[in-house]
Amino acid sequence: MQNLADRLLRAIDEKQNPSVVGLDPTIEKIPEHIRISAFRCHGPGARAVAAAFVDFNTQIIDAVADTVPAVKPQIAFYEKYGSAGVEAFERTVAYAKSQGLMVIGDVKRNDIDTTAMAYAEGHLGCPAMLDGSGNGSGYHGMPVFDLDMITVNPYLGSDGVKPFLKICKELGKGIFVLDKTSNDSSVELQDLFVSTFSERRLYEVVAEMIHGWGGEFVGERGYSSIGAVVGAKSPEQAEKVRKLMPQAVLLVPGYGAQGGGAKDVVPCFNADGYGGIVNSSRGIIFAYLDKKYKDLYKPTEFHIAAKKAAEDMKQDIVGALREAGKLPKSWN
Amino acid sequence: MQNLADRLLRAIDEKQNPSVVGLDPTIEKIPEHIRISAFRCHGPGARAVAAAFVDFNTQIIDAVADTVPAVKPQIAFYEKYGSAGVEAFERTVAYAKSQGLMVIGDVKRNDIDTTAMAYAEGHLGCPAMLDGSGNGSGYHGMPVFDLDMITVNPYLGSDGVKPFLKICKELGKGIFVLDKTSNDSSVELQDLFVSTFSERRLYEVVAEMIHGWGGEFVGERGYSSIGAVVGAKSPEQAEKVRKLMPQAVLLVPGYGAQGGGAKDVVPCFNADGYGGIVNSSRGIIFAYLDKKYKDLYKPTEFHIAAKKAAEDMKQDIVGALREAGKLPKSWN
Repeated sequence: MQNLADRLLRAIDEKQNPSVVGLDPTIEKIPEHIRISAFRCHGPGARAVAAAFVDFNTQIIDAVADTVPAVKPQIAFYEKYGSAGVEAFERTVAYAKSQGLMVIGDVKRNDIDTTAMAYAEGHLGCPAMLDGSGNGSGYHGMPVFDLDMITVNPYLGSDGVKPFLKICKELGKGIFVLDKTSNDSSVELQDLFVSTFSERRLYEVVAEMIHGWGGEFVGERGYSSIGAVVGAKSPEQAEKVRKLMPQAVLLVPGYGAQGGGAKDVVPCFNADGYGGIVNSSRGIIFAYLDKKYKDLYKPTEFHIAAKKAAEDMKQDIVGALREAGKLPKSWN
Repeated sequence: MQNLADRLLRAIDEKQNPSVVGLDPTIEKIPEHIRISAFRCHGPGARAVAAAFVDFNTQIIDAVADTVPAVKPQIAFYEKYGSAGVEAFERTVAYAKSQGLMVIGDVKRNDIDTTAMAYAEGHLGCPAMLDGSGNGSGYHGMPVFDLDMITVNPYLGSDGVKPFLKICKELGKGIFVLDKTSNDSSVELQDLFVSTFSERRLYEVVAEMIHGWGGEFVGERGYSSIGAVVGAKSPEQAEKVRKLMPQAVLLVPGYGAQGGGAKDVVPCFNADGYGGIVNSSRGIIFAYLDKKYKDLYKPTEFHIAAKKAAEDMKQDIVGALREAGKLPKSWN
């Protein structure tokens, strides 16, 4: 079974692109022709929204599949519409995988014990299903979401992470643990000085835990399947976190709509040009509404606008890596 | 619009019971007659498991509805089976509400900005649905899960909590923010000494934040719709947290299967006998497998066993409150 980090780095090399597209649909921003069609087919209610999401996402996936190594659907936008929305999430994941993309489920799940294991099995593994054997009550495992990687919240400590590690080990999957998030109020807890470990900040303690969890998941390329979410606010902070978890792949939010530029993400990469994977969601999928692109593309060309925006992001980040002397050697 | 905490306290008074039943089904523990019937109707796959969950849960709800004020389904056990499982969650929530129970969704969601708002709208609010107006692309809000309260993880700071507060305010709903969880490794982060605030532990800092968030949500009974999850390891710890958030309702896990007894939960209650709500999941719903009950009930009587276990839990906790001089005055 191949190591997840090795698979991810190979996908990044194939596209020569360490950026991913977040599939975070909101019905109000989906082009009118898709909304009208979905409403005609499904009437009012969550099923129409879910159908619009699938229609929209499959066109986005087709448009960006040659450009990016992975997509990152944020489950909140689907779960917002209950089981109908979650079915749209499942179909989106399956379609992205069928087009050769890796899929990072941004789910930020967290719990302990059998509950965390239920999340791990559902999102990454093979939950037990009835199969009618053994007097009608036997089981076999079947994949459900079958994501490649998911995000996990660490507030409950290692009890809350170990069930995910177990499934990662068994099935060659990966996780990104929240370390330092990109929002302003992340300082309220994550930046507190922790005196138990002589004046380090909480996210530094978490970074060291992530490094520890990832030790036995390091692949041939030197990176671990256990990564971290790092939305650093400054280059110094990113470099510090980078050093604390040298083998972790850092999932970096905050490019594009959340305000950061390509230069801001460079410190999240190691000197070898790897170790970072940068996400943009609304800035790509809703590029057709962006002032930079909206005069160039009609609403029915939203997917072409998304492709252009994804290519622009790639060039922007690759350019910044090159300028910093961090372009992977094999990309020249 | 009635305050959520007032509604919860009234429900607790009606049943004279501050304990709730966690609806955390696992297919392997569901009685064989239900599994066989679900497999016959739905064949292999997630739909059969989901059908078994709904069959099982509705019988449990019927059995305990006279005894407990609320149920607490843990979404992980449903989400494990994808959209089919989430539909079983929706049906469980709807059925529990139809039987007059309040429903606490144990979802531990966390994110920021529009993403947190998507969770808040989906679980507690009314997301925008297409309604065909305005050239076929208008919207109206419709409830989805329509839970009364959900659990929320605080690791992202107040940015991650405010979208939930907004929906709580608009719609009279409530949340329980994770403060101190009941697992052993909760000490790894939650118990770290934070020197930024002169040597307080992280969960004390979080407790004060929860108290602050809850200030404008206090109802006529003196309790706030913004509560906390507190799985205290010692009476001293529980008393400390209780004092830091005097107006919060504390959702207390760890009774029953997780090892704690009635005496351990008493410090989570205020002197007036309120402010605590105690959960047991497996200890109730799978009581028919427990050595204490399994000789008394057949597998087909699993729901009667659950009713007995729920009544035993009530007596146990009410007895401990009485012994500590904390029984609510109106219950005598």
